[in-house]
Formats: sequence, structure tokens, C-alpha cells
Amino acid sequence: MTKINCWVDYNETCDFTIYNLPFGIFSTNSEKRVGVAIGDKVLDLEALNQSGGFNDFNFDESIFISEYLNDFIALGKETTTRIRLAVQAILADETSQFKDSGILHDQDKVKMHLPVNVGDYTDFYSSIEHATNVGMMFRDPENALLPNWRHIPVGYHGRASSIVESGVPVTRPYGQLKPEDSPPVYSPTKRLDFELEMAFIIGKQTALGQTLTTQTAEDYIFGQVLFNDWSARDVQKWEYVPLGPFLAKSFASSISPWVVTMDALDSFRIDGPKQQPEVLPYLRYEGPKNFDIALEVGITPENGAETVVSKSNFKYMYWNMAQQLTHHTMNGCPVNIGDMMASGTISGKDKGSYGSMLELSWAGKNPVQLNDGSTRTFINDLDTVTMRGHAEKDGVRVGFGSVATQVLPATAN
Amino acid sequence: MTKINCWVDYNETCDFTIYNLPFGIFSTNSEKRVGVAIGDKVLDLEALNQSGGFNDFNFDESIFISEYLNDFIALGKETTTRIRLAVQAILADETSQFKDSGILHDQDKVKMHLPVNVGDYTDFYSSIEHATNVGMMFRDPENALLPNWRHIPVGYHGRASSIVESGVPVTRPYGQLKPEDSPPVYSPTKRLDFELEMAFIIGKQTALGQTLTTQTAEDYIFGQVLFNDWSARDVQKWEYVPLGPFLAKSFASSISPWVVTMDALDSFRIDGPKQQPEVLPYLRYEGPKNFDIALEVGITPENGAETVVSKSNFKYMYWNMAQQLTHHTMNGCPVNIGDMMASGTISGKDKGSYGSMLELSWAGKNPVQLNDGSTRTFINDLDTVTMRGHAEKDGVRVGFGSVATQVLPATAN
Repeated sequence: MTKINCWVDYNETCDFTIYNLPFGIFSTNSEKRVGVAIGDKVLDLEALNQSGGFNDFNFDESIFISEYLNDFIALGKETTTRIRLAVQAILADETSQFKDSGILHDQDKVKMHLPVNVGDYTDFYSSIEHATNVGMMFRDPENALLPNWRHIPVGYHGRASSIVESGVPVTRPYGQLKPEDSPPVYSPTKRLDFELEMAFIIGKQTALGQTLTTQTAEDYIFGQVLFNDWSARDVQKWEYVPLGPFLAKSFASSISPWVVTMDALDSFRIDGPKQQPEVLPYLRYEGPKNFDIALEVGITPENGAETVVSKSNFKYMYWNMAQQLTHHTMNGCPVNIGDMMASGTISGKDKGSYGSMLELSWAGKNPVQLNDGSTRTFINDLDTVTMRGHAEKDGVRVGFGSVATQVLPATAN
Repeated sequence: MTKINCWVDYNETCDFTIYNLPFGIFSTNSEKRVGVAIGDKVLDLEALNQSGGFNDFNFDESIFISEYLNDFIALGKETTTRIRLAVQAILADETSQFKDSGILHDQDKVKMHLPVNVGDYTDFYSSIEHATNVGMMFRDPENALLPNWRHIPVGYHGRASSIVESGVPVTRPYGQLKPEDSPPVYSPTKRLDFELEMAFIIGKQTALGQTLTTQTAEDYIFGQVLFNDWSARDVQKWEYVPLGPFLAKSFASSISPWVVTMDALDSFRIDGPKQQPEVLPYLRYEGPKNFDIALEVGITPENGAETVVSKSNFKYMYWNMAQQLTHHTMNGCPVNIGDMMASGTISGKDKGSYGSMLELSWAGKNPVQLNDGSTRTFINDLDTVTMRGHAEKDGVRVGFGSVATQVLPATAN
């Protein structure tokens, strides 16, 4: 990769290098605007536009003043890619006229918001290690992986209305729990869990009846975020047969605020696991469609220090995004800009790479040790769960920042 | 009920009497507007507003020019109820100044559209007869009803993007099918089915963390529509374990275009089935919360006449809407205006009241006879499926009109 200099100072090990330039929605006052992260700054695209930075472009003057990125994404990948490259050229130009034009804000002085208005949200289940672990615990250890798993990128519809951005606290939810030998009870969940996931955001809509192929699917993906699919394991266990997870998941899902574009991730492609038995023709693909993105999860007790409890990688995914989206549209189901599709929990082979407390503590049997001497089987009240992710190759780093969420105690009902 | 005269002529057995006055989105040109159905006419609320019909109201002048009812519903039930009553008073007044002011269109000359922008869509599974029938066929005849069914209004998240209005044809979808003793195949579904459902539309949003009670839940429901939850049974069978139905349902759901308000349905309340064992306290309720709404499904072959294949009733629901919505929000999951929550297939005890071909043909074993001598196990290409619903009491009728959908052959992929 050609080395690119940048007149914004940052440490080369930071997530938001000039090779990244993710988009997000920020505010410094009551007006939400589109920004780009660079180092520990936010580049204000509206301010840059006002200064004449996009004179060569032909779009609605107010495109960067928006509640969500949806209208921006709707400009189309050709335009958003050009915008990103224009920003990159400006940041690389030591003599840029925009250098001192007040287009930068300190990241720690702006408020970040949900980047997109999510129409529909789908959660896949595409890590073979996770599906196997869950199958061993919830069903049959001898037949952990269900017969359809290697043929279908299994997924289900999730709840879009409870997707929140990093920093929004999550309250321990109530639910129906079923003690072993007595009737169900109404109670706050006793098994609150995270799920380490990534989610991609649809960048181009399809019509009812339109299908995509593994060759075209990535053209419909704008970028990705970190995704914490909060789960209440005891609620899930009692409710999920036969129609799947419902209230066990719908109380909240937390995402990182910066959308890292597929353009920025392109250098980090890698081959995925071999799929055996061979998949049906509509799911076959060519070229590397997995991405080498290092992931980690930390738990920070109230007033304590963080312990990293999991180190995983997006490259472990058995089913890649192109296959997921191709499958999703095979029946003509339309996708819209801003739709979010999450990977499912991303676990690796080693215990230290499991992406949920369910797996890390093996359903509560093996408590996880934190640095302060305390242990966790699931997540405690006032714990903060932080997920991070970044790709790195040949000294170039492209990262996602983090999604950090504190758990608040259940409120009396 | 007090008899109300109406200066628009209609037959008393029509669905859109002066006691009904449902809201919908219609167009006569490129502009979509809010209308009210009366007899075989559409009352144009924008035209009525322009003529001074709402001079006593204080709302945005352009409220009736809209792609969807969402902004109208967001006025709040107090206002939308007042608007409905104002329309009723005008239609009842033989001397109304608006009688000859060109505020009516012929229903058969306007185009109806999707009434709301659906944020999230949830499908419940609340008919005990349907759940028992499906359990007998798909799982264990001896234990057809799963242990959680009488404790939880079981539901799952569906796909909002493929909800379409009556009249939009549905193309037979492709999917993965699993023949008994061979690997899965890529094929158009061979078991295309309807599901006779009703859906309620959220009229008031809740915040993340907010819970509703069975006493307050109905205040958050604006009205109802007929809902055909198209299903591909062979796709469903292969994909649905463990995370529930996905592509078997997401290719399309069809709804009737007129939203019948809870106000209009209030006279048709009826007690629901006794719930045994007693439900948890948060699901207990007082007063009649079921609704006596007669439902029917007809199949019309290409160039043929319709055969009514099912006559059911919304009153059969084991779980009522207040319980469904209370359960849905028990974990703090927010609901938004326009969200749709469907009942699940509404089957009664008798064979003639089953709400799907799966049940009517008992998984294909007992073909259903049509009047033209042909038979159906599932739905054929070019068949039109029509659902209708109406409530009637003391000579007063309030109906939903219909949702009619033709099935087109699968397109070569």
C-alpha cells in the first residue's frame, strides 16, 4: 500500500488513520451533521462543503446536515467513494487551503449518534464455532450443528427499533424465566450476555423480487460497524422454540458510531474457511470475501479497570457477507439503504476467542476471572462491556473504534 | 347503537358504513393523500380541509398530503378521533355545506397505497388451534402445543420491507428445499401458502426501556388491517430450526389498504377464551379484549370464479392484542408509529375455519375442492387469494374490505 502522509497528527496505531476515513453522524449543538473520523478529530463535512471543499461535486447543498447517513449513502457508492477520496486528498495535502479553516472538531468534544436509520435488521448465525458451542449447550452435544447449518447461512429477523449507539446504557431487562421444575416467573434476566458481532449496512436498495448474486452483493454493502447483540440467555432458553429468539434479544443491540467503508476494508480481504459439503451454486463465490479484522471484548466493573475476556477475528466467519446477502435476497425480499445485517457471534476455535459469556463461562459452569479478582459467569449490573476491532497489514491500520455500553440495574416495575 | 344517517348512498351490508370511516392513502394523480372510505367512495381529507372542513383544528396545513399515514397518526389519538368524528358529523348532515364540494372520489377510480411506513413488523402465533395444528404436523402429534405456548404470547420478528398492499402481485419465490433423502436443492417453492391474519398498527411510540400494561396497551394501537402472511412451507420446514422462519416468510406479506380504527371496532368487543393455566400477573387483563370479526378466504383460479375455502373469526385468538403488546414491551423494547403486529394465523376449531392451506389440506394430504372441480393442496400460479373481514352487530356493519393478491409464476433465475 502506498504510504500517505496526513497533516492531522495521530499515532500510527490509532484506528482512524488516513487509510480509513469512516463516516458518522455527530453534533456539537442541536444540528446533526455528517463527519469523518481522522485521528482523534472529526472532520466536519458540512464545514468543508461551506468552505468550498466539494465545489467539483453536484449534490444537494444540505446533504451533510442530516439526522442519519441514509441520504448521504443514497448518493451512491460512486459519489461517496469520490467524497472519501477527496477528503483523503485534502488531508494528505500539507498545503491544503482547508487546513486552517476550522473543519476539525475534537472527537471528545462532539456527541456521536446512531449513524443510520435502520429499516430492517437481520442477524445471521455464521460462525461455525459459535453455532457448535451453542448447539452443544442448548441441544445435543453429539449433534451440535443442525443439518441445515452447512447449507444455509442461517439467519433471523431482529428488532431494528432497539439498536442504539455506543454510550447509551442498557437496562437489565425483565422477562419470563422458567426455573427447572416450577412454572415460569417474571423476573429481571439473571443471564445477561453480550454477543461479539459485526454488522454491515446496506448501501443500495433492491426492488421486491430482485435477487443478488455473490458477484454483485458487495456492491450493495456500504460499510460495517461493531455490533453487540445483547442477549438474555434465560429468557432465550424458555421462549425460542419454535419461532426463534424474540424478547431475549430485542431489548437492545449496541453499535459503534463510525461506519467503516468497504473501500477502506478492501486491503484486508482474506480467504474464508473451506465450505464442506460444497454449497449450492447460488452460494458459490470467487476470490477472498472474508476480512481479517481483529476483535476484542473487555469487561470493566464499576470504578474498576478493564479485563479483556475475548480476542476473536472476523476472518473466522464460515459464511461471508456476499453469501449472506445473496441468500437473503434469493426469494426476492427487498433490502433498503440503512438496513443492518449482523454476523452472529464471532467465536474462534480457542476458548479465549469465544464471543459471548455463554461460551466463555460454558453456560455458567466455568466463571471468567477478571483482573480485580472478581469473577463473571454473565454480565453484572454496572459493568461496562467494550468491543473493539481493527484491521492491520503492512503497517497500515484501519479500525472501528469501539462500542462501549454500561449495564444499569433493572428498574422496579 | 344510535342509528346514523349518511348522505352518501351505500348498501347497509357494505364494509365502509358511516360507523366505520377507516383511513388510508390514495392517489388520483402523482400526489398521495389521506382519505376515508365511505360506501364505494373515498372522502378526500385534503379537499375537505381546503374547503374549510377542519377550520376548528390546529394542525399542519399539509398533514393530509403524505406518502403514509404515519404523520397523521402522530397527531395523537385525541386529534385523529376528533377528525373521524368531524367527518362522521359532516357525512350525517344532509344540509352539509361540503356535500357538493367535490370531496368524494369513486373508490374504483383511485389507486390505494401502503397505508403506513412500517418500521418494525412482528408476527405473533396466538391462535391455539393453529399452533396445535402446526405442532401436530411439523413436530409431535402427542405434544403439539409447546410448553411455553400457554405462558407466552409467542411471536417473532418479521421483515417489514416486503409488506405490500392489496393488488400487488406476489411472485412464487425460490428457496432451498430439502427432499426427504437427498441433499437440499434450489427451487421455486412447491408449497406456497397464505396465512389468514389481522395486524394492528402502533399509534404512539414508546421510549427505550418503557413498558406497557394490559390497561394501557390499547392506547398505543391506532387500528387494524387484514394481513396475508405468505409462506413457503417447504422452505420453512428446512430453515426454521433453530432460529425461526426467515426466507419462508420474507418474500411478501399483503395487507388491506384501509386502516380500521380501534374507535370503530370498540362496539364489537367480546370475551376471549379462558386462559388455563392462569397467566403471569403482567399478562392478566380486565374486560373484553377480543373482537368479533368474521373472516374469510377465497381462492380464484385464473379466469375462474372464487371458492371460499375458509371462514374464521378474530374472536378465536387465545392471546389478545393488549397482551401481545404488553409482552412485547416487557423488556423495554421500543415501539414506533407505523410498526405492525400481526396475529399469526387465525384458525378456529372446525376444519372449515382453518386459516392456511397447510391446515386445510393437512400438509397436502387432503386436497381442497374448488367450485370449478379443480383441487388445491397449496396455492397455484395465477390463483388470486382474497381475504375479507367485517364485524356486525345490531344491524351495524364495520368492515375491512379485502386484501387480494395474485400469485405469479417464479421467474427464471
